[in-house]
Amino acid sequence: MRTLQTLRIAAWLLAISGTMTMSAQAAEEKRDPFFWLSEMNKASAVMVTEQGIVPKELGAKIANAVSKVIADGDKPGAPRSGNYLIVEADLIKAGGPDITRLHSGRSRQDIGSTSQRLSMRDDLLAAFDKLNAARAVLIALAEKHPNAIIPAYTWGVQAQPVTLGHYMLAYSSAFARTAERMREAYARLNRSPLGAAALGTSSFPVNRPRLAELLGFDGLVENSLDANQISPIDSGAELVSLAEAGALTIGALVADITQQYAQTQPWLMMTEGELTGTSSIMPQKRNPSGLVFLRAQASIVIGHAQTFTMTAHNVAAGMSDYKPFINPAQGNQPNNVMREAAALYDQFARIMKTIVFNEKRALAEVDADYSTTTELADTLQRVADVPFRVGHHFASEVVNYGRGNNLKPSEIPYVEAQRIYKEAAQHAKLDKDQLPLTEEQFRKSLTAQNMVESSQGIGGPQPAEVARMLKAEQTKLVNDKKWLDDRRNSLAAAAKNLNMTFAKLKTP
Amino acid sequence: MRTLQTLRIAAWLLAISGTMTMSAQAAEEKRDPFFWLSEMNKASAVMVTEQGIVPKELGAKIANAVSKVIADGDKPGAPRSGNYLIVEADLIKAGGPDITRLHSGRSRQDIGSTSQRLSMRDDLLAAFDKLNAARAVLIALAEKHPNAIIPAYTWGVQAQPVTLGHYMLAYSSAFARTAERMREAYARLNRSPLGAAALGTSSFPVNRPRLAELLGFDGLVENSLDANQISPIDSGAELVSLAEAGALTIGALVADITQQYAQTQPWLMMTEGELTGTSSIMPQKRNPSGLVFLRAQASIVIGHAQTFTMTAHNVAAGMSDYKPFINPAQGNQPNNVMREAAALYDQFARIMKTIVFNEKRALAEVDADYSTTTELADTLQRVADVPFRVGHHFASEVVNYGRGNNLKPSEIPYVEAQRIYKEAAQHAKLDKDQLPLTEEQFRKSLTAQNMVESSQGIGGPQPAEVARMLKAEQTKLVNDKKWLDDRRNSLAAAAKNLNMTFAKLKTP
Amino acid sequence: MRTLQTLRIAAWLLAISGTMTMSAQAAEEKRDPFFWLSEMNKASAVMVTEQGIVPKELGAKIANAVSKVIADGDKPGAPRSGNYLIVEADLIKAGGPDITRLHSGRSRQDIGSTSQRLSMRDDLLAAFDKLNAARAVLIALAEKHPNAIIPAYTWGVQAQPVTLGHYMLAYSSAFARTAERMREAYARLNRSPLGAAALGTSSFPVNRPRLAELLGFDGLVENSLDANQISPIDSGAELVSLAEAGALTIGALVADITQQYAQTQPWLMMTEGELTGTSSIMPQKRNPSGLVFLRAQASIVIGHAQTFTMTAHNVAAGMSDYKPFINPAQGNQPNNVMREAAALYDQFARIMKTIVFNEKRALAEVDADYSTTTELADTLQRVADVPFRVGHHFASEVVNYGRGNNLKPSEIPYVEAQRIYKEAAQHAKLDKDQLPLTEEQFRKSLTAQNMVESSQGIGGPQPAEVARMLKAEQTKLVNDKKWLDDRRNSLAAAAKNLNMTFAKLKTP
Amino acid sequence: MRTLQTLRIAAWLLAISGTMTMSAQAAEEKRDPFFWLSEMNKASAVMVTEQGIVPKELGAKIANAVSKVIADGDKPGAPRSGNYLIVEADLIKAGGPDITRLHSGRSRQDIGSTSQRLSMRDDLLAAFDKLNAARAVLIALAEKHPNAIIPAYTWGVQAQPVTLGHYMLAYSSAFARTAERMREAYARLNRSPLGAAALGTSSFPVNRPRLAELLGFDGLVENSLDANQISPIDSGAELVSLAEAGALTIGALVADITQQYAQTQPWLMMTEGELTGTSSIMPQKRNPSGLVFLRAQASIVIGHAQTFTMTAHNVAAGMSDYKPFINPAQGNQPNNVMREAAALYDQFARIMKTIVFNEKRALAEVDADYSTTTELADTLQRVADVPFRVGHHFASEVVNYGRGNNLKPSEIPYVEAQRIYKEAAQHAKLDKDQLPLTEEQFRKSLTAQNMVESSQGIGGPQPAEVARMLKAEQTKLVNDKKWLDDRRNSLAAAAKNLNMTFAKLKTP
Repeated sequence: MRTLQTLRIAAWLLAISGTMTMSAQAAEEKRDPFFWLSEMNKASAVMVTEQGIVPKELGAKIANAVSKVIADGDKPGAPRSGNYLIVEADLIKAGGPDITRLHSGRSRQDIGSTSQRLSMRDDLLAAFDKLNAARAVLIALAEKHPNAIIPAYTWGVQAQPVTLGHYMLAYSSAFARTAERMREAYARLNRSPLGAAALGTSSFPVNRPRLAELLGFDGLVENSLDANQISPIDSGAELVSLAEAGALTIGALVADITQQYAQTQPWLMMTEGELTGTSSIMPQKRNPSGLVFLRAQASIVIGHAQTFTMTAHNVAAGMSDYKPFINPAQGNQPNNVMREAAALYDQFARIMKTIVFNEKRALAEVDADYSTTTELADTLQRVADVPFRVGHHFASEVVNYGRGNNLKPSEIPYVEAQRIYKEAAQHAKLDKDQLPLTEEQFRKSLTAQNMVESSQGIGGPQPAEVARMLKAEQTKLVNDKKWLDDRRNSLAAAAKNLNMTFAKLKTP
Repeated sequence: MRTLQTLRIAAWLLAISGTMTMSAQAAEEKRDPFFWLSEMNKASAVMVTEQGIVPKELGAKIANAVSKVIADGDKPGAPRSGNYLIVEADLIKAGGPDITRLHSGRSRQDIGSTSQRLSMRDDLLAAFDKLNAARAVLIALAEKHPNAIIPAYTWGVQAQPVTLGHYMLAYSSAFARTAERMREAYARLNRSPLGAAALGTSSFPVNRPRLAELLGFDGLVENSLDANQISPIDSGAELVSLAEAGALTIGALVADITQQYAQTQPWLMMTEGELTGTSSIMPQKRNPSGLVFLRAQASIVIGHAQTFTMTAHNVAAGMSDYKPFINPAQGNQPNNVMREAAALYDQFARIMKTIVFNEKRALAEVDADYSTTTELADTLQRVADVPFRVGHHFASEVVNYGRGNNLKPSEIPYVEAQRIYKEAAQHAKLDKDQLPLTEEQFRKSLTAQNMVESSQGIGGPQPAEVARMLKAEQTKLVNDKKWLDDRRNSLAAAAKNLNMTFAKLKTP
Repeated sequence: MRTLQTLRIAAWLLAISGTMTMSAQAAEEKRDPFFWLSEMNKASAVMVTEQGIVPKELGAKIANAVSKVIADGDKPGAPRSGNYLIVEADLIKAGGPDITRLHSGRSRQDIGSTSQRLSMRDDLLAAFDKLNAARAVLIALAEKHPNAIIPAYTWGVQAQPVTLGHYMLAYSSAFARTAERMREAYARLNRSPLGAAALGTSSFPVNRPRLAELLGFDGLVENSLDANQISPIDSGAELVSLAEAGALTIGALVADITQQYAQTQPWLMMTEGELTGTSSIMPQKRNPSGLVFLRAQASIVIGHAQTFTMTAHNVAAGMSDYKPFINPAQGNQPNNVMREAAALYDQFARIMKTIVFNEKRALAEVDADYSTTTELADTLQRVADVPFRVGHHFASEVVNYGRGNNLKPSEIPYVEAQRIYKEAAQHAKLDKDQLPLTEEQFRKSLTAQNMVESSQGIGGPQPAEVARMLKAEQTKLVNDKKWLDDRRNSLAAAAKNLNMTFAKLKTP
Repeated sequence: MRTLQTLRIAAWLLAISGTMTMSAQAAEEKRDPFFWLSEMNKASAVMVTEQGIVPKELGAKIANAVSKVIADGDKPGAPRSGNYLIVEADLIKAGGPDITRLHSGRSRQDIGSTSQRLSMRDDLLAAFDKLNAARAVLIALAEKHPNAIIPAYTWGVQAQPVTLGHYMLAYSSAFARTAERMREAYARLNRSPLGAAALGTSSFPVNRPRLAELLGFDGLVENSLDANQISPIDSGAELVSLAEAGALTIGALVADITQQYAQTQPWLMMTEGELTGTSSIMPQKRNPSGLVFLRAQASIVIGHAQTFTMTAHNVAAGMSDYKPFINPAQGNQPNNVMREAAALYDQFARIMKTIVFNEKRALAEVDADYSTTTELADTLQRVADVPFRVGHHFASEVVNYGRGNNLKPSEIPYVEAQRIYKEAAQHAKLDKDQLPLTEEQFRKSLTAQNMVESSQGIGGPQPAEVARMLKAEQTKLVNDKKWLDDRRNSLAAAAKNLNMTFAKLKTP
């Protein structure tokens, strides 16, 4: 039934927005600004006590108040502000005005800057996870049809046959580079601004490395002005540029599938289901709705990345100065762009999982064009020392003859090939003007299978190289998954240690 | 004379465009597409001979033809095409049609992709060089006035005093991160696509690693479809994002200086000279023209970076497919954006070199506002255990009193401070309601000097940290300069080796 | 209390997002996609009956089913889909399968395209309304301080005194141009695509002009392929460009106020209240939070406008093809950008209403610089025929003397002026080398008051012109308000007529 | 020969850049900044004399000096500065210091602002001209093949057949809207800022309306602050948004042709020639190079338009403040964007002129898919009162049967259609379950010809509507051409009048 299918689309549209809403909701419930503020409050409580900025007894009092405020916020429906001044009012209620010493040498500026990094750290790792999943789908497709022949294009025109394995691994390589960039960005991102106070540190003996360690950071953004006011600009720019580059790569692959849909018989098609749609009026329509929305979403990721830049440009430094970094209502923080990129990878993987490859159609598409003629010229040179430019000219005339007579390559009469060669050789004043290929050699040189299998270069579409590259991509993916696990384990260990150390404060 | 000054500006405007034109011209004369194509022709000549794709005698013939074509192109005014098909016609003229075997297993696609990387490699290193020079100017300013007091702002309002050293080193740190990103990008960039042919390698036994080595690459972009068609997208995106991030950071610093110019007595001013201007009608004008143009140029770097993205999005993969990468007339290749970024760093450095800092005015600006009151509250907590929120409330009321009575901080009567404290303490129900600071302590706590010197945190504006960070930034810069030297030496060695190996071909 | 102020900021932040949420919510409850679909269903019911596409009895059945579905959707909490296929299921439930003839010659494509125009029409008028309100605030400020002197800047440096009236009316003029553009855009926008079906009309005798009339359109987008698939691109581009241009103009004015905040004593300041904020750590801070967020929001309007372009570029035509126009979850339709622009005008007006102008400070800022010296040169030419370039040179030397001796213009000794004039006149080889101004003339020529009052040109800052332009701007605003009222009345009349005509269907 | 073809491409690439370079060169030689400055100097000379700001004798002296400087600048190779201060030095040389009274009440600010408008006026009209030429090509294609059947797409999938006339006229309509917008923009653009001086007029009795009239303006930008400092922002934004919208529309049409090239047998193809290319390695390649570059150029127009916005945002007002409007070396003035748009229209027209339409292939593409089945359902409703949703369900099942059995629509056995109808009717519980169409009716309802000819709606693809719309588009084009002629004649008349009036000055 159409209605059912329509409802499925509607459900899917909801799911797309759901992905975001849920992730926003999840963030709100679990790892929202209140959560990060609470983590910082725990870390500050430990540090100010250890440094003697507050006596142990006050440290205990602070710890108990912080615990109570967290417990209150965790109650269903309870307000969970990420604004320290609002939370401080609750802390004072729980423990009296002395509690405010927790905030010694701290400001909403370094809290904001740290909160943003904590959250971007989460978002970067989540996007990395989705990116890995997307790579896994591409690698699986390469593994399933490593040597199936498909057309490849340059200047928008069929260029030569390659293999589906070759194609999918090419994109997998590009994704792997993005992964590499994300790992490098993480190393710059996971550094702590906390203790920078407003921008100039303070007169309290704040232990910044200790705060960093407690919060799972790998180091400091040292200069306190840089920490809060300047680094958010280039860090944000780096994050959104990663989202942008990923969207560009996805966009290129999506353009190829989109192009297939304009054909009456595509060789790449999505399985009909909740990611495809129908028409209210046109009975024949099988719309690749998911693909269409995915393409739009790639545009939006890029647009929002550029919105970040628009916002950060031509204004003075400052995390909260003319930039929406601290105002989630305005929604274009680098975090959000990274979250949108994660959703993009996720939906890309979901769509690619439904892709059905029609090997016969792909080969027919290659056979209907003349994209193997480069190998005809190459064969002439390899087998019979015919200069490349002469072989190229001959092959070009074969194409003209074939197209002019509405023939496919396999239908060119051998005798015509011989005639054309003779003319080309005479025109180039070669000594020998006989086509130096037997009919079998001539025929074979025009098959896609031969062309692919003849490839010799590193990185080519031939089976051996596809197999080698498949293994290489799998290995890179395994390493990147391990890296992610290591990061997450390390953050989990830091969180556990923070909780334990903080818990000990309560009973000095 | 006005006219002279005007001519100086005109000369400078010319110089700005000159920077670009000259660099374009330089590129055209020396390291233009013809140059890069010739380098590839030399490398291909060596490789096809070594691999036996052509016999040694033909290798010699090829080498001689290639040499002649290069020599012809080097003649003054001679045409220097980067289009292989045009150059091939000259090669054939020099050595006959057999010469075209040089092109075995190559295409204009991998030539284009390789040419672009060779040129981007140059441009990235050139921009890195200018970036280092800009860092050196910032570090020099920090070294000259490490502990001079200046106001720092948040939310566009004076926040607290820092030091000029602290400020300049903050920006220097941000620049150092950009340098780090450029080094990482270089590692991905300096990989060879050559031998990928159109996109699927070929049936010739092309030795891609050998080609890479001869051209100074550190490795391959392996997958041949990726090499030519996909990697140009994400590599370009990476390069332009680096240019963009750098422009954002410069833009923030320029916003600060711009703001000074709106004051009747700025504490940061450019020395009058060829980077400043006058008015045809307003005798009092001393326009910071160079600064104004610099700001516009930062916008243009960003706009052109986004133009790259606009171009690469929503189209199929392919270096030459719907992207202007190979059409310099359209001018927005990643190379150009990187060149514009290099010019931006260069002009930034030139302007910063003319900056005169007026220490007295900067301190007066701090003293005219109440930005030291945070330290008053901190002092109360440190010295007399006054809860921070109470101290903050007291300080805030001091500010209200002072501003209400049009007093500077240093002019607040001690007796009024005592009265205000009593009210604040009573309001907070503290046991003790006497201001626990002597007049001397009170006065001192409001001076900028004291506030800066009291800072304790890592990365703060205090002299010790500024000195430490100054050394750290200097070390980073030395390392980055060494890295650049190493890269350039390595490329020079590869070029020398290519020339020697190629020369040997000629006499087999 | 700080906490109260903090809560006020939080409330305001909520209000900003609230503005959007509420407007989104309002749209959802009242003029949401279901509402527009229902309007179209009513119009289609009337038209198919009138045209005899369905017999009158079926027309009545359809009308009753449509009414029931609307009534159901209007119940609190009821689902309100804008997807015709989902609503059709309800229509069939209410009236049987024959009801689907309502959809004769219609498609979700023309429904979508029409729905988008109906909603953009609303959004454009709403933004126009807010724009008018913003103009009213600027005009009110001009009316309140028409002739108060303020500094004006070029090249970021004080240029010459103007008046607050002159300044505010300059911006009001720019806003009036945007209003003119919006009126012109409305004429293109308020045209009906309905009846275009998928893109090629249909074989039913659909009366497109009648549908247009019933829905309040002023005409048709005639070509049916254009109507659904092509015009959404340029219409959307036009709408977002209007939002963008408005944001640029606001951004320029905001930059001026922002600059004031960097001063220790601004002459333009927001009244402290719910649009300003404080610091958790810096007691002296009075942050112009509303202004800071407004500036960010202008960036976001522009960024989202450019996101529209990013989405619509390099893809095939089609309202739903690779563009998020029909997927509100993706949120960057032109509608949303126009709504964000409306919110921007609204917040701009709210902030400008709180602006306090300090006339004394503004004059002091002018008097502290030399921006009246143009008039000194002009006076010399007018009064004593001194060539302008000579007068300009003299004035410039007066400035150098004054600045060099740390004097304000009013403090320059007359005798020094005489000396400087003599040198200048001799240098220019004038016959007469005596300063041809009395001390009184000299002094007067350097006052801001004199300079402003001496202005003669149309459009200048002098009282007469300010008064004239004030009246002109008021008239333009009155006309634009009337235009808006006329449009809204006309749409209300069409809606009333549709309801009446539709109601009559039910009892044929 | 390949080489010849290659040279043709190279020549064409040169021609593209040539278009710009030549236009830049032309501008430089004829209507460059020096030319516009000279026009203003002539107008100022007339006005200051008429107003008595200078005596008639001095007026004559000024006029002669201005004439001499123009004559000198017109000499081959002579410098032609647009900077008044540089030109003034020459004027003084020609006529002594008194000559500088020409500049009374003028500034480089209003000169710059006026020069920009004069030049934008030219550029807008030139782009309008090229737009008209592009429309003429589309209309000619519609006229040549008004009723030839082609497939149309929604969601990237064949939707239904339309006609080439319908398609081309749809785009022509969109272009006509852009023309309408350009005419409206012209009315706002052709207003004079001259006499605004720096920003506040002056104390001279400058006659601004007279200056405007002499320079061919239709009115004033009245408020002098607005004239120079604010209006350049929104005027520039309006101009670049027009260029942007045009590029989006072209981009959509180009996407359709691009898609054809991915097919082995396109039905729209460029004639081989100087706008197409070949491969150095792939003999079969016939690359649509011109199309590929055109698409990239559309991206660049948009990117440069957005660069304008990036530059104008977040900075203070001012034509020369942080915006490259006055620095052509930075190249992103609105003028340039409009010039790039003109080149885009020009190249679009050149490519469209080479387009060959293969009517047979287009029809075969339609016949190979099921895009006529909407009409099958419509026929059932029209002929036999079958509810649309039932007819739609039947048609959908016919499609499933046909595709499942690899049949084209024309190959579906009538008996199978009867069987499928029975099942559908029973499923919907209709009274009658016999297919109420004869085999002839059934067959006819599935032909593209029938579907197109059955269309009844205004704006549909049927011959009558195509003929009507063709006439309408032709009329619009005639009107727009007339409007352009009128504008150009009016400007020519103003220029003539200026020259005559100015000439009379010389002999008072």
